[in-house]
Amino acid sequence: MAHLLSTSCSIKLSSGCKCYSKPLNQGLEAFPTSFTLQASKYPFRSLVSQGQKPLRNYTVRATTLPISKEAPPQPSFGTLQTSNEPSKPQRVMVIGGDGYCGWATALHLSNRGYEVAIVDSLIRRLFDHQLGIDSLTPISSIQNRLRCWKSLTGKSIELYIGDICDFEFLSETFQSFEPDAVVHFGEQRSAPYSMIDRSRAVFTQNNNVIGTLNVLFAIKEFREQCHLVKLGTMGEYGTPNIDIEEGYITITHNGRTDTLPYPKQASSFYHLSKVHDSNNIAFTCKAWGIRATDLNQGVVYGMRTDETEMHEELCNRFDYDGVFGTALNRFCVQAAVGHPLTVYGKGGQTRGYLDIRDTVQCVELAIAKPAQPGEFRVFNQFTEQFSVNELATLVTNAGEKLGLNVQTIHVPNPRVEAEEHYYNAKHTKLVELGLEPHLLSDSLLDSLLNYTIKHKDRVDTKQIMPSVSWRKIGVKPRTIIA
Amino acid sequence: MAHLLSTSCSIKLSSGCKCYSKPLNQGLEAFPTSFTLQASKYPFRSLVSQGQKPLRNYTVRATTLPISKEAPPQPSFGTLQTSNEPSKPQRVMVIGGDGYCGWATALHLSNRGYEVAIVDSLIRRLFDHQLGIDSLTPISSIQNRLRCWKSLTGKSIELYIGDICDFEFLSETFQSFEPDAVVHFGEQRSAPYSMIDRSRAVFTQNNNVIGTLNVLFAIKEFREQCHLVKLGTMGEYGTPNIDIEEGYITITHNGRTDTLPYPKQASSFYHLSKVHDSNNIAFTCKAWGIRATDLNQGVVYGMRTDETEMHEELCNRFDYDGVFGTALNRFCVQAAVGHPLTVYGKGGQTRGYLDIRDTVQCVELAIAKPAQPGEFRVFNQFTEQFSVNELATLVTNAGEKLGLNVQTIHVPNPRVEAEEHYYNAKHTKLVELGLEPHLLSDSLLDSLLNYTIKHKDRVDTKQIMPSVSWRKIGVKPRTIIA
Repeated sequence: MAHLLSTSCSIKLSSGCKCYSKPLNQGLEAFPTSFTLQASKYPFRSLVSQGQKPLRNYTVRATTLPISKEAPPQPSFGTLQTSNEPSKPQRVMVIGGDGYCGWATALHLSNRGYEVAIVDSLIRRLFDHQLGIDSLTPISSIQNRLRCWKSLTGKSIELYIGDICDFEFLSETFQSFEPDAVVHFGEQRSAPYSMIDRSRAVFTQNNNVIGTLNVLFAIKEFREQCHLVKLGTMGEYGTPNIDIEEGYITITHNGRTDTLPYPKQASSFYHLSKVHDSNNIAFTCKAWGIRATDLNQGVVYGMRTDETEMHEELCNRFDYDGVFGTALNRFCVQAAVGHPLTVYGKGGQTRGYLDIRDTVQCVELAIAKPAQPGEFRVFNQFTEQFSVNELATLVTNAGEKLGLNVQTIHVPNPRVEAEEHYYNAKHTKLVELGLEPHLLSDSLLDSLLNYTIKHKDRVDTKQIMPSVSWRKIGVKPRTIIA
Repeated sequence: MAHLLSTSCSIKLSSGCKCYSKPLNQGLEAFPTSFTLQASKYPFRSLVSQGQKPLRNYTVRATTLPISKEAPPQPSFGTLQTSNEPSKPQRVMVIGGDGYCGWATALHLSNRGYEVAIVDSLIRRLFDHQLGIDSLTPISSIQNRLRCWKSLTGKSIELYIGDICDFEFLSETFQSFEPDAVVHFGEQRSAPYSMIDRSRAVFTQNNNVIGTLNVLFAIKEFREQCHLVKLGTMGEYGTPNIDIEEGYITITHNGRTDTLPYPKQASSFYHLSKVHDSNNIAFTCKAWGIRATDLNQGVVYGMRTDETEMHEELCNRFDYDGVFGTALNRFCVQAAVGHPLTVYGKGGQTRGYLDIRDTVQCVELAIAKPAQPGEFRVFNQFTEQFSVNELATLVTNAGEKLGLNVQTIHVPNPRVEAEEHYYNAKHTKLVELGLEPHLLSDSLLDSLLNYTIKHKDRVDTKQIMPSVSWRKIGVKPRTIIA
């Protein structure tokens, strides 16, 4: 057994938030904050599964006493309650709340009156170090982000730093925060990352599947009425030659009919991990009465939400590299710096896309109208379909309006996927719940391009090209050097 | 980082096999054997995933130099070759070759002329200790089993003791043995075991999914033409209200048609782990050109195969307990000792069943006629369907013929499953390959009952009742005490 180590330390932080952009009415003054970082047993625990060589990434399994515990309480009541108790606040735990979608969601929910806690191991920041990549936008530490949010809005977001694969940590967060809903973004979310080498493939499946299993067990044990809102991906479905339904399909076969889970054809170890999650969650809904919503999200683009643009310290991350960058965001960066848009293969790959403002809206809608006990509800969370070629054309046209000379090149496809295929995915359920989509418009593209132009001095063009091949993945640990 | 420890030791074993039953013509004399057990780094590594409290089970990560390396080589050539090179031996690695199906399969393949290696961590034996259960039949150590087999038949079976979740170990076995086919039984295979507590649920999914991922990576890296024959389960399909096809279903939907993976509805963390495996394997067939056969096996019954009955030291295990016991085997034990047959719930649960002699036959057929590169082939491996009530009636009638007074009781169903449902699963592909089924006959039931009567003094009736509830599983480690 490993040696046990018990340490604790206290860190005093002062608020470094200079509030000058779009101040709200509440709590504008800087405020001093202190919190205790408790690093208990197993402080350095490798994130890879038993039996694997440890990766060189470590996480500190630590529980921070929430910042809010040190600041005067700021009562905050739900604005979107649908129950008969409108004044009762809803408590939402956002796992992975320091990431791209998670951060925007945590702020949005906090702004809408939910009591929010962020649970995050911060490993996404470690991936940047390990891969030698960085967000286009400079992002603040999670501590400074939350201090800034508090000083701008008066709203506290609790913070639990740790790994949900560590069930002891997760148990403590559940028992401390007592969530009514858990929004689970806390997974390794890059398909290329999962295809770098065997260790990353194993890490991705272990981390995502076991983390989600732990969340399910925590709900069963500590908060059985808690609604799980889980981020899945449209990539779970693959590209079947029939219409993609939302989670289920009614099949008539040999004269009999049943409604069954829609067949999945995932095409990376990451996408597969989401399929595994969906299957595990569906089972626990049936066996334990868990209430769950699986949001099969499309590719997210965009930078700003109402909340992140309140202050530069709240700025969201923006990935354009070959591992974590997503198609449209990457094209905008390429256009801004005069790099040809890199279309993988023929470019006929069609997927669902959505604005990050719709991500936060969809999650809020799912929370406000929760699944029933025992219900495994699946929503396809995107607003429009585009092929990669169509995106390239849109960015080219928008760039030309801004005086940019945008070229497109077709590079060998590092993935194994159909490059010309039928694609028609349903996405009506969130609209029925009230989603009002932000469709990809010229003005959004202009804004996105201007934004990337503003930050173009930070672009490292060596990060842009694809560096991970689906076919060449091997068993030896691989260091990505752009 | 954990302290590293490097040890090696040499163990000398003499053959204790007294050969008196059904001797074959070859190699009857006892022979001395010695082998070196190399325990290198990380000798005691917990089998649970990172972030979990370690269970109290340990495995020694060790590589044994194959017994055969010390004994004079006994050339053995394939008898079932279908290629143009009939004299070339085929090398088959049987992962989990010390278990119920694995042991019978390893001996059968060896007897049929394949060069066989067993890869096993022996953890199934540890489960018996931890749960306080035991096989009805006394089973010999794997070392004595293999010595006995060698002395009876002259055929060597190589032995690699270690955990396939340890990729370094698995790599060594692949590079040492160079398999042409891998038969993968090496998973935690009990649904109730996976539902004991959170640790066992997490262990089951981590162990099964990561172990199989490692096998896929090993094939890609070291033996890209190697054919993976993977044991899945009919339980992956659940009980849909339409006919169950073999792996795929052709769906016409909104005027378009595609053939897609058959929808899965698994109902335990164990069954789910097999669904995850199937999805992972299907992807690697497509992305890497792996050739794989997924054998969705029904419930196996029976004791004897031609090989295991050659000598009592080759005797297979026979589980009748509430965790690892399967329905028909357990009913026979109950009838033998005068315990009522325990039908869970209404007893209308219908499943596919097969004789263990057909398990070994099916695996051999799959190996002899391998999948093509890139092909993910799925066979439903069972021969007959029965409801639990039908099995109870069959055992009752067979028992009465032998003068037993067999009662049946309905106990509360510990599982979450439909107790009355439609069930019609296809199973023609293995018949098309040449399977000649051993159907469940009166004579087989007589023989099975007589066999259990013979061993009835070893029956521990406290092990019989179900001890694991699908709904009551919790997060605290649970010790099963019958």
